[in-house]
This record gives sequence, structure tokens and C-alpha cells, in this order.
Amino acid sequence: MREPILLTPGPLTTSLATKTAMLTDWGSWDSRFNALTASVCQDLLAIAGGERSHVCVPLQGSGTFAVEAAVANLVPRDGKLLVLVNGAYGKRMAQIAQYLGRDHSLYVTADDAPPCPAELAARLRDDPAITHVGLIHCETSTGILNPLAELAAVAAAAGRRLIVDAMSSFAALPIDVAALGVDALIASSNKCLEGVPGMGFVIADRQRLLASQGNSHSLSLDLLAQYDYLQRTGQWRFTPPTHVLAALRAALDQYHAEGGQPARLARYAANGARLRDALCAGGLRPLLPASLQAPIIFTFHAPDHPDYQFQTFYQAVREQGFVLYPGKLTEQETFRVGCIGAIDQAEIEQAAHAILSTLRRLGWLPAVH
Amino acid sequence: MREPILLTPGPLTTSLATKTAMLTDWGSWDSRFNALTASVCQDLLAIAGGERSHVCVPLQGSGTFAVEAAVANLVPRDGKLLVLVNGAYGKRMAQIAQYLGRDHSLYVTADDAPPCPAELAARLRDDPAITHVGLIHCETSTGILNPLAELAAVAAAAGRRLIVDAMSSFAALPIDVAALGVDALIASSNKCLEGVPGMGFVIADRQRLLASQGNSHSLSLDLLAQYDYLQRTGQWRFTPPTHVLAALRAALDQYHAEGGQPARLARYAANGARLRDALCAGGLRPLLPASLQAPIIFTFHAPDHPDYQFQTFYQAVREQGFVLYPGKLTEQETFRVGCIGAIDQAEIEQAAHAILSTLRRLGWLPAVH
Repeated sequence: MREPILLTPGPLTTSLATKTAMLTDWGSWDSRFNALTASVCQDLLAIAGGERSHVCVPLQGSGTFAVEAAVANLVPRDGKLLVLVNGAYGKRMAQIAQYLGRDHSLYVTADDAPPCPAELAARLRDDPAITHVGLIHCETSTGILNPLAELAAVAAAAGRRLIVDAMSSFAALPIDVAALGVDALIASSNKCLEGVPGMGFVIADRQRLLASQGNSHSLSLDLLAQYDYLQRTGQWRFTPPTHVLAALRAALDQYHAEGGQPARLARYAANGARLRDALCAGGLRPLLPASLQAPIIFTFHAPDHPDYQFQTFYQAVREQGFVLYPGKLTEQETFRVGCIGAIDQAEIEQAAHAILSTLRRLGWLPAVH
Repeated sequence: MREPILLTPGPLTTSLATKTAMLTDWGSWDSRFNALTASVCQDLLAIAGGERSHVCVPLQGSGTFAVEAAVANLVPRDGKLLVLVNGAYGKRMAQIAQYLGRDHSLYVTADDAPPCPAELAARLRDDPAITHVGLIHCETSTGILNPLAELAAVAAAAGRRLIVDAMSSFAALPIDVAALGVDALIASSNKCLEGVPGMGFVIADRQRLLASQGNSHSLSLDLLAQYDYLQRTGQWRFTPPTHVLAALRAALDQYHAEGGQPARLARYAANGARLRDALCAGGLRPLLPASLQAPIIFTFHAPDHPDYQFQTFYQAVREQGFVLYPGKLTEQETFRVGCIGAIDQAEIEQAAHAILSTLRRLGWLPAVH
């Protein structure tokens, strides 16, 4: 049987070319590995539009490690972070501020409601202590796309700095950190870049990063120390995930060959539209209106049947070769389907068929008329 | 040309079977991946001898991330850590305590001198504030083996807890965390287990870990939260390095097939003896006497020639397919050669020949008579 296709928001299905890049062992002190690190960071910085203003600092661990490092380093110990929360990743950024002992407050909207720029402006006006705004670009709890450009404009107008968790949007949705005035943008190897998991990175405003001495609470997550060491030696401070980095290099090569960000967005948008259309035609209801939906991961309401159980559904679809993702809403029964990774409309078509035919066979969705 | 052999203390040369285990993508939420995690943790715990008393908590990132997590969680905020320092990794553990704001002091010995158990006993007697002793089992700065059993006995007799960085010794040298009364033992995937880099793990005393609530300074490095979540869900809290874990599973299978710890130690000991004998016979001098040397990585004095340059030597040996490691001593010109990884006496023989013939060709070592 074919390896299952991962319809998840990362780890996701990667190409064989990306995986075979891991068949080489690299010396972490070797100049060829240093060149690999430099080339990956250069490409990531260019994708973010930060070549003149920002630097790319790679970090071992999952994306959350990089978010924590960004908040710890770029929000000064006497700063205050306003986190825009409409899902689990916004809550997580707030939890990080809590661990760090950084003053913070929340602007919470519903899972299916983006934060309102006018309301953000009012909150920034009302609380001059706020120095930084933290935002999740695409909240994968639901798949909602938050209005980065509008919110960034409000923050800039109010003279506040912006930290963007772009974990699941980076490299697919257009982002220009210099134009938006972003202090730190965080993403990881294993989302829209289609690499394997094991490292995150922060695209940080160079001046802000250089001014962050003494902010970090952690040796491992000290972004400035990581940057300094890389600058001085070409090496990561501590053992890098060598194979993960080599896979990311291969994934970036394929990204460029595909046509970069516009081409990747076009493929994901076509995947997403096909998925949404097929499942809606089959009788399922998406959580979000199309206008709020990022072409990354889709949340669908569970079929309205008293016997529905996600685990049974999940296992049955898995046996047909597709790995779904559970819902993350506490009040509504939902499931999620990602449309990113090394997959095209053929796999989406097959997945939609597997989802619908399984639900019909289980009697949880009416048969087609 | 053959891929170069890494004579480094990790990342090191892994087997093809280990690397090809990375050719599958895993859903991090999937039950098969959860089973993979559980089986790896179970094996690591068994290797450490902690099945009845300890738990294994895997952590994303390099080994240093796991050391920081162990110190942060297991040394209470009002505790005091005495770090035994005879190299870079001891200094690093002290630096971690500094970042964490944990009270700490150092017992420093020379790079080629292990800490003395009687002196440790005296220091513990003289400073009742010390709650924990931090020790590097094999200090890869030089390759020195510190006397774990003797020092553990002193700590236990004084009623103090022990944190052991066993990064480069775990799975090759015998360690029994239950018998030694170790609070936390830290190692990583990419040393004597012969996996690829990207994760560390902590073998933690279960009761001590469960009592560590509120100690962690960091969300990402909160070992208790990671353990809790694993226990409740079978999953890592944040995206795991799926391919790295799969490679470690494959590496553990090979470890068991080879004969486990005694067989691995025997191979490394034979590798190390062959390396040392060959380079000594060629006119090079090891830093350490054999009695202090772990069979992991060897430090040799640079040849006593005014023109000697490590970079030139390194590149020339690399062109013959062997990656050496620079020395880490500030006061003496040295280089290091590892004898661990998926290599046997054949590769060690070739490496010794490449090292000696290169130094002779460069005129930095007298020709053989």
C-alpha cells in the first residue's frame, strides 16, 4: 500500500526528493554544512522580504520554541504584549508571555471572527503600556486568515511593534516584513515550505534583535546569542538538526523550481477550492465563510448524526490512505482537512472521495441521490 | 566518492538503515506515531535502568535544550546547584543555571583532571545550601571520563540530588540511574545511540519530576508539562521531529541487534584502542592517560611544528574522506578524533592512515624510519 497522505497542517506529506536529502550525514562543524545553513537562511529572508532590514535566525525544536524565543528576545522585560486571540495558537502565545513573566493582555474574538483593526486601534490608544502586538497570521485551530496588513498598519500608526506567528502561512501567503514593519516573524520547516519538522526560524528586525541583549530567559532560546554565534562562526551554537536542514534546502530548491510563493499559493488555493467544493457538494458544511478562509487547512462541521464518532471516521479514512486532523474547537464537533504539502488536485480528489464515501458507508451522511 | 566518515562526537556517521527510516512521513497525531514514541521512550528507559523509578521525557531540539529543561525543572527555584566543571559542557551547565537565576557554585578542575570524590564530599559538607550536584559524565571537550559512580555515592551519602549530562556516554558506558540515585540523566539521539540530531531526552526520577510543578521558566522546555501531555494523550505537546524519532527507532533496533550496551562499548573500545595505538605509533601524543580516557572521542596534541595549522590539516584529511573535530582547549593546540558512530575498525584504520600520511606529507610529522 502507498504511504498515507497527510492532510494535516504539518508535519505533512513531503516529496521524495526532500526526504532523500536526509540520506547524507553532515559534520556540524564542516564548512559545507555552514554553507548549507547560510543558503537556507538567505532564502528564508528573501521569501519574507527582509533582506535589507531583517535577519533570519534558525532555531532547533518545533515552531513553538521559535515563538517563545521571539517573544522572549524582542519584547523587553519591561514591555507589554497585547495578544490577538482567536484560537489555540493565540492562547499559546499568551501562555508564553505568562511563563516569561512579561506583562500582557488579550484581545479575544470568536474562533470564526478575525480581530477588528478599529478595535485594535482603540485598545492601543487606551493602554499606552502596550509595546508589542502579537498576532497569528493563519490560526490553524480553524484555518482562519487574520488581516495581517490592516492590523500591521494600525500597530505602526500607533507606534507599536508587531510579532507575527506565520507558522502555517509563511511561503504560501505573501508577506513583506519590511513593508509591514514586523519586529519578528516566526515560521518552521514543516509547513508551507514542505520540509520535515525539527527546526523553526525567526525573521527578526536586525536593529531590534541587536538591542535585545539581556532579554532572554533561556540559554537555548537566546535568539541574539544564536545570531551572534552564527555571524561569527557560520555555525549553530548547539548541535543543529543536520538532516532536517538538508531536507529544507532540498524543499527550498523545489519551492523555487515550482515558481516560489505565487505558484505555491496557486496550488494550495486550487487544492483548497477543490476540497471545499467537493465536500460541500457531498453535504458537509465548512465552519468558515470563504472570505475568512486561508487555503491551508479547512474546518468542517461533523455530520449531524447521533452516532458520529471522529475516531471511527478517522480510522476508516486512514485505511484508505488519508490522515485527517481532529477539530480543535471545544464547543462544536468538527474535523479538519489540510490542503498543503507535496500534494496536488489528484490527491485532494481522492481524499474527498474517501471522506464522503466513508461517511456514507457508516450511515452518517445521506447517500447521493 | 564515498560520503565522508564523521570522526566527530555527534552528529556522526549513521547507518543507511537509520537514514532510510526517514523516508516515511508520519502524522504527529496518528496512533502509529504515538506507538513509535512510546516504544522509543521505553527502550531508552530500559537502557538507563530506570524502568521502576524513572520516566523518559523526549524533548525537541539539541541536547543542550534537554539539559536546560532538566536543570530548570528539577532544581527548585530556591535550590542550589554545584556544577563540577572540567570542560566546556560543565561550563555550559553553569551558564544555564545563570540564565535561570538559580543559585549555583562551581567546583573546577583542570581539563585533564577528574573531580575528586573526597573534595566533593568536603564541598557538600561546607555548603549545606547545595541541593543538587551537576556532572558531565564524559566531557567531550577532551574525552575525559568522570567517575560517575564514586561521585554519585558521595552525593547520595550527603543527601544531595544528582543531575548527569550523559550526552556522549549514554548507551555505550553502563549507567544505572536507579542504583546511582540520579534525579535526571540527559542524552540525545545523535551520540552513542547512532541516530540523527534533532531531539534530546531526560531520564527523570518520577517522583521528583511530579513534584516539579511551577519550576520551569519556559513553556517549550517545561519537562513536567511535556510528560503530563504524553501520559494523557500519547503525543508530544508541540510538533515532534517525526523523521528524527523514526531514525532513532531504527537505530535502537540496530543497537539491540548488535547486543546492546556491552556490544556497543566493546566496539567503541576496540575502535578507540586501535585509533590511539595507531596515532601514538605514528608519533602523535594523546592529551589524556588511558586511565582517564572514555572510548568516545580522543584529544591529541598538535604536532610540534611551527607551521602546523589545523584548517590545512583538516581540509587535507577531509579530502581523503574523514571529518575531524577541532580541539576545544584554549591553552594548548590540539585536535580531536571521535571513535563512535556506525564505524568499525576498518574505518578507524583508514582514518589513522589518512591522518598520519597527511601530516607527513605536509612535513609536520617526521617520516617513518
